[in-house]
This record gives sequence, structure tokens and C-alpha cells, in this order.
Amino acid sequence: MTARVRVPASSSNLGAGFDCIGVALDRWLVAWLTPTAASEISIRRRGLLAAVSVAVEDDLLARGFRAACAAAGAPTTGATIDATSDIPVGCGLGSSAAAIVAGVLLADAALELHLTRQQVVEIAAAIEGHPDNVAPAVYGGAVLSVRTAAGFVSTSLKVADGLELLLVVPPFPSDTKAARAALPKTLPHSDAVLAASRAAALVQGLASGDAALLGAALDDVLHVPFRRGRIPGYDAVVAAAQNAGAFGATLSGAGSAIVAIAPRERSAAVGAAMIAAWRDLGIEAELIKCTSTVAGATVIAATHDVRRTTHDSTVIKELL
Amino acid sequence: MTARVRVPASSSNLGAGFDCIGVALDRWLVAWLTPTAASEISIRRRGLLAAVSVAVEDDLLARGFRAACAAAGAPTTGATIDATSDIPVGCGLGSSAAAIVAGVLLADAALELHLTRQQVVEIAAAIEGHPDNVAPAVYGGAVLSVRTAAGFVSTSLKVADGLELLLVVPPFPSDTKAARAALPKTLPHSDAVLAASRAAALVQGLASGDAALLGAALDDVLHVPFRRGRIPGYDAVVAAAQNAGAFGATLSGAGSAIVAIAPRERSAAVGAAMIAAWRDLGIEAELIKCTSTVAGATVIAATHDVRRTTHDSTVIKELL
Repeated sequence: MTARVRVPASSSNLGAGFDCIGVALDRWLVAWLTPTAASEISIRRRGLLAAVSVAVEDDLLARGFRAACAAAGAPTTGATIDATSDIPVGCGLGSSAAAIVAGVLLADAALELHLTRQQVVEIAAAIEGHPDNVAPAVYGGAVLSVRTAAGFVSTSLKVADGLELLLVVPPFPSDTKAARAALPKTLPHSDAVLAASRAAALVQGLASGDAALLGAALDDVLHVPFRRGRIPGYDAVVAAAQNAGAFGATLSGAGSAIVAIAPRERSAAVGAAMIAAWRDLGIEAELIKCTSTVAGATVIAATHDVRRTTHDSTVIKELL
Repeated sequence: MTARVRVPASSSNLGAGFDCIGVALDRWLVAWLTPTAASEISIRRRGLLAAVSVAVEDDLLARGFRAACAAAGAPTTGATIDATSDIPVGCGLGSSAAAIVAGVLLADAALELHLTRQQVVEIAAAIEGHPDNVAPAVYGGAVLSVRTAAGFVSTSLKVADGLELLLVVPPFPSDTKAARAALPKTLPHSDAVLAASRAAALVQGLASGDAALLGAALDDVLHVPFRRGRIPGYDAVVAAAQNAGAFGATLSGAGSAIVAIAPRERSAAVGAAMIAAWRDLGIEAELIKCTSTVAGATVIAATHDVRRTTHDSTVIKELL
């Protein structure tokens, strides 16, 4: 079977939801799988993936594909994967999670593995190390993922009407490994207590649109204090967002992008202010607006070539 | 003016909502204020308050009364406060918060201070040290209180239909100060991350009734691991609740009571199992069931004696 998959970008953490909350964004990775007689997987990258230069065995699409086969007890077959994307790579927008999810879903569709969406999340999260980008990439919208005795549980969160996400993406990536290494081994107990209350505030604030709750939730104490110094202009961009009427702003993932949450009527001003704040420092950033809930990954399998069989032709045409 | 106030008990923390989430319970403190010509406050205690023996200047009703007067810039007038309660004292059921809130509200009503409910929470929380019992005592239902740059914000949480709270109260109190001293100064960063995800799970689990989320939320890592050893039989009672079909169980406040959350159809079995587990250890505990949302504090002021002017006559009659 051939198969085509479309997976959204995502922004994880949203301040106090560190390593557990993420939201799908309106940028996409699209990939097609064509079975081949060869025993290996080959990858052809276009769009923003063209700059990726890892060996095929380390490619996240291929790793997702192989992991899905292994989880389902199916042999990895030979295939060519064509992939393209308009998700900036290495900027905290979930490009890795999108690639892993795409690989898992291509294997699921092409080899008819019949994985559940939760299995897709689990397989992909095992590669990524945490589910906070993977889960919204699969389910769409905002998702909370919690570790329980029985593995991760992912659940969709309500997002109040009228909330918009503004992401500004600078032209430099963030080193995710270094950002994780910057976290301390321990925290004062009082900070952990404050962090828990703000994670609760994030869930309640997203659902209600309450300004005070969202402001507190976006003022994280678990990771941002240890990472913001790595992003030039972070404080200026966050202050600009707040002054322009955002509830708050914070790192998207581990950066380098910064995400603000704003009421609809302030979102244009907030986006412009964030771009201007970085421009004042000589940094030309790109704005991504998310004005409504973004759907999760979609996949189609077919016996014919599905590259252009599409119900989301706008994105595909742009990407091809 | 005379005044009468009725304030509910409350259970704080509910596992992962440490120091930020609490829920009102169907036990009540009722107090009446009668102005006197004397300059001091005198307190007469009945019901479960009869065992309280603190000096009047340290009495929490009097402290709440004086703090409200001070916050409003009003002189503290002389008064007699009659108070009675069926809230067990010192067992993690918010008896202190109820007394403080009662004092604040009596001052507000009798002296016409025109405090907002949020001001009542702030004045009472300043005495109590944290708002997690005070806020549900004032607002009723389940309440999240979050520290922000502009002070505490309290917001009502949705609780799914069909969730019941079962509280079992042993015949011994918990030493709240010692329970707080048992907390460590620092936590591993990974535990703080886990705690935040579970606080988020508590908000989402209460709203949705999701079993996995509630199970994770009630399995706290911020305070229970350091406190449970102080409550004889804690592990047995929690296990009994889970085995009988509760989503989970945890300390109510800092104990000594244990609170379970269960689906309605399992609540009778859960309550019985928790009582039986303590009985097996020679401890006769009392069961308090909360089958629906409990309203917050109510107060009435009048120029006549309001002791028996009541719209909640059942409780008052029981208490008188």
C-alpha cells in the first residue's frame, strides 16, 4: 500500500505545563510512502526538511516507521518516503515529533498495523522521550499527557473561544539537549508547590480564558528561568507581548520560538510587538498565528499513488 | 447589628493540588454575633468547638473578626460571639479556615464593612497562611487558588456529575505544624515536573470524571510521601478505597482524615471499606459523604436577634 500523512507542528509546555501540555499549530509536515522491492528505507526531503542532513538510519521518519513495525511485530519493509514540511526545524515547534509521528502513521497505514491513536502516541513518545509534542500532533488541539502507573494518559483540553496563539520564530535554532542540561537537579520545595499551582492554572485558564490564570500559568518556574538566558532578546519579546495586551508569553518548547497567548482583539498588536522587539535587537523573526483549534494528524492509505489525492490541497500545493 | 454566619468545612490538596485546591464539605460552623457595650470580644463555644481551649485573643473567630476590622480601617467593637460546629477539629477538614472566615464575615456583616468575597478570602488566607481551605469555605464547591503578581486569584473548578467525596475521620488529630515541618526543603526536579502534571490532571480529572486522570492526581508526590507515615493505617485505608472502586484516596489537608474520590455507584462500598480498614487496626473512624456540590459561607445581618432566623434550619437545629 502507498500512504500519505499530514502531521501538524506543536508548541509544548506553554509555561507551567512543562513536559505535559502541548498544542497543535497550523504548520505541517507531509510525507508519502511508496513501497519498494529493496529492503531498506530511503528518504527524500524537501521544504524545510531539505536542510536536515542526518543519516537515513537516524532520520526520525525512518525511526518512527521502524518502531511502529517493531511494536506491531511486523518486519520492516523497504520503502521510499518523500517528506516535506513548512515547520521550522529546531525552534521548539515540534518538528521532531511531527516527523516521528509521520513515520509511525505511515507504517500503520501502509502495513495495515491497526494501531490505536494512543499506541501511536506511545510509540512516538518513546522515541521523543516525552509525549508533550507527540500527543497534540496526533490528537490536535491542546492535550495534557500524564504519566500514570499504567503508562501515559493523553486527554484533550478545552480551549476557550477567543484565545489566540502567537508564535515568533527567530532565525536561529535552540539546542534542545543543552536546554535540558540547563535544568537543575533539584528545586526548592516551595518552587515545586508554586509550579503545581500554575500547571493547574494553565488547564483552568485555557478552558476559561481567565486573564489572571493564564498570566500566572505563562510565568513558569520549572524550566524557563534556567533557559531564557540562552535565547537573546527573550525578556524584551515577552515584555513586548505583555505590554501589547497578551496574557503572557513564554518559550515554545525549549525555544528558540516564543509563544504568546492573547485575546483575539489584541492578537494583531501582540504579534507585531513581538516581531518589533526582536527587530530592535537586529533579529528578523517570523510570525505564526493560530486563530483556531488545529486538527491532529491525518493519514490515508491506498493501492494507488496518494501523493495528490488530498482533501487539504492548499497546504499540499504550497509544499510541493 | 447582630449577624449570623454559616461556613462549611473543606478538604484541601486532594492529592496533587497541594496548597492550591480545596473543596467545601457538608459539615458546618455556625456563629452569631451580638454587639456588647464592652470593648472586648468574648467567645462562647459549643458543639465540637467546646473542646477548643485557646485564649480569646488567639481564638480564630476573634482573629478573623479583628483582621477584617483592621483591613477595613474600622475600630474593633465589643461583641459576644456564640459559635458551634460539627466539623472535627484538627483532622484536616478546614475547621480553622471555617472559624477564621466566620470571624471575618461576622465583622463584615455586623459592622457593614462591604468586603468583597475575594477580600474575605485574602484577609482569612493571610491568617491561615494559605488560601486552599479558606477559598472553598467562602465560595463553596471546588476552588483553585493561585498566587500571581497581584495576589491570590481564586476560581471555581468544574466537578463532573457522579463524583463523590468520601472522608473518613479517625479519632485522633494531626499536628499541622509537624506535618508541614516534615516536608523536605528541596525536591528532585523530575518530581516537581511530575507534580505539576498531576496538578493539571486534578483540574482536568475533576472536570471530566476521567478515572486515569483522577487516579494520577490523587497519587501525590509533593507532600503525601513525607506525611503518610504520621497517620497510622494510612496505606491500608488508601488501598481499601482503591480496591473498593475509588479512583484514589489521599490525605485530607495534612490529615488525619483521608479523602477518597469515587464514582457514585461505588461510593457506599468505598466508604465502608475505608471504615473497615481502620477498624481492622482498632481505629473507629467516622464517615462523611459529600454527594453533591456544597455551597459556600452565608451570612445575614439584622437589627434583631438572628440566631433562629434561618433558611438552613436543619443544620442549625442539629447544632443548637
